Amino acid sequence: MASAAETAEGRLAIIAGGGLLPSYVAEAARLAGEDPVIVILKDESDRRWDGFDHAMIGIGDFASLDRLFKKYGIGRVVMSGSVRRRPEWREVRPTLRILTGVPAAIRTLLSGGDDTVLQMVIKLIEGRGLRVVGAHEIAPDLLTTAGPLGAVSPNKEDYRDIERAGEAAEVLGGLDIGQGAVSIGGRVVAVEGVEGTDGMLERVAVLRAAGRISLRRRGVLVKLCKPQQDIRADLPAIGVSTILNAKAAGLAGVAIEAGRSLVLDRDALIKAADENGLFVCGIDKGLPGWGLQ
Amino acid sequence: MASAAETAEGRLAIIAGGGLLPSYVAEAARLAGEDPVIVILKDESDRRWDGFDHAMIGIGDFASLDRLFKKYGIGRVVMSGSVRRRPEWREVRPTLRILTGVPAAIRTLLSGGDDTVLQMVIKLIEGRGLRVVGAHEIAPDLLTTAGPLGAVSPNKEDYRDIERAGEAAEVLGGLDIGQGAVSIGGRVVAVEGVEGTDGMLERVAVLRAAGRISLRRRGVLVKLCKPQQDIRADLPAIGVSTILNAKAAGLAGVAIEAGRSLVLDRDALIKAADENGLFVCGIDKGLPGWGLQ
Repeated sequence: MASAAETAEGRLAIIAGGGLLPSYVAEAARLAGEDPVIVILKDESDRRWDGFDHAMIGIGDFASLDRLFKKYGIGRVVMSGSVRRRPEWREVRPTLRILTGVPAAIRTLLSGGDDTVLQMVIKLIEGRGLRVVGAHEIAPDLLTTAGPLGAVSPNKEDYRDIERAGEAAEVLGGLDIGQGAVSIGGRVVAVEGVEGTDGMLERVAVLRAAGRISLRRRGVLVKLCKPQQDIRADLPAIGVSTILNAKAAGLAGVAIEAGRSLVLDRDALIKAADENGLFVCGIDKGLPGWGLQ
Repeated sequence: MASAAETAEGRLAIIAGGGLLPSYVAEAARLAGEDPVIVILKDESDRRWDGFDHAMIGIGDFASLDRLFKKYGIGRVVMSGSVRRRPEWREVRPTLRILTGVPAAIRTLLSGGDDTVLQMVIKLIEGRGLRVVGAHEIAPDLLTTAGPLGAVSPNKEDYRDIERAGEAAEVLGGLDIGQGAVSIGGRVVAVEGVEGTDGMLERVAVLRAAGRISLRRRGVLVKLCKPQQDIRADLPAIGVSTILNAKAAGLAGVAIEAGRSLVLDRDALIKAADENGLFVCGIDKGLPGWGLQ
């Protein structure tokens, strides 16, 4: 089963981190006639990949990645899923090319912000003559659309929280720190760092239980793509678990950047949001009122 | 025991939130010849105030605060210590003046950022003809001085983390979200929201234990005064517990804004830092290299 693209550009590799996204990308690739090779990131990918050609590599192991690309005739690469760890120095197995040609690469890999690291990885892969494509190019149906996705819409109070959390998320993203923030009652109460969105939502739930955040005001989670971010890597994503965690944190809903973020398992997500009375909406910060009003 | 200031300007009231700061301010006031009245914030202040004139009020209870000011002939007010909760709507007991003269005040109190709320409280108190003074005016010895306080100095790696975390803290402060950030290996891994500095440090310790942050790179906590902040309210502060929490989070040290933050229990803090091999230093972001290099 080889598509025209495959013949002309070589086979597609899916670098699979954690979470649901790699599965969606792999299925979408199959539907589009590809026969993707799954490069499983050790200690990150959390599903079995039986039924696909696959191989596991350590997270800093560029030497093995290079060998895999050659072995399978890879011409295009999509990076998908979360990478929670950074490699330790001793885990990095650079290629000679990295050592000689990109001297700052190792340091970036060990200590750069997420975005800096992903940019470097993209550059390294492209330096091999391969093309890096975005998950949304393989699975365009995952892209967030503008406006409410489910039955519930944000109210006036929610709009204010969307603006506040959106402002914080934008600034945080600009500093390559994180993609999300939570505003409750017009006040930003939590901003996302290495702990990630679920960790941040759990913190909000704990602060609520401790009386540090009012139980009477609901609040909003906003996730935005980092302004400088190459959208081929690490687009913000939400899934059913995001909705359930937002519910546990007492939030009124979730707003995520339209056109530059991914909604996983959309039908199940909308069902979960509707059943729990939460809104989910795509927002566009380029439009007045974030495209909502 | 009445000082000249007391006679001319009325008695000093210390509004006491949580933590150690109110005690230091009260003792310093006594040393300066004052006889302060302690206004204990219910559910926030965590020490006994025997030996001082004192009264407890609920956090939104402006009516009682007004009565206390009159009863004791208060002319000057210092606000000190942390306030972890925001009042619920039903807890607010406004004065008629607040209701009629400052219509936005209640909303601010319920949902503004820390800085906005404190500005409003200052304005309300000054509207009564009282003067609001900073904790550092009563206890100037608490102000952070520039440069290393203990035996350990930051190294080159630490300087980079100070700059990164400082940049994040400055932006966060500008949005009135929080005062602190942690950078490890040149990467900002945590930013402070409602959980506060100790909560953020605990999170870093947990992320370390889970392998989400390298054990090999140490990192730095930076706390800055919010750029727009009235320094009579809520100056950043560190105490012995900050040092011990930073140690538990695996950090190399703590940097805090010189001249616009407070060091509590300085001798014990320096001893704790020295014993644990952590640096503590005052930084000045107006100077090249934050005044350290």
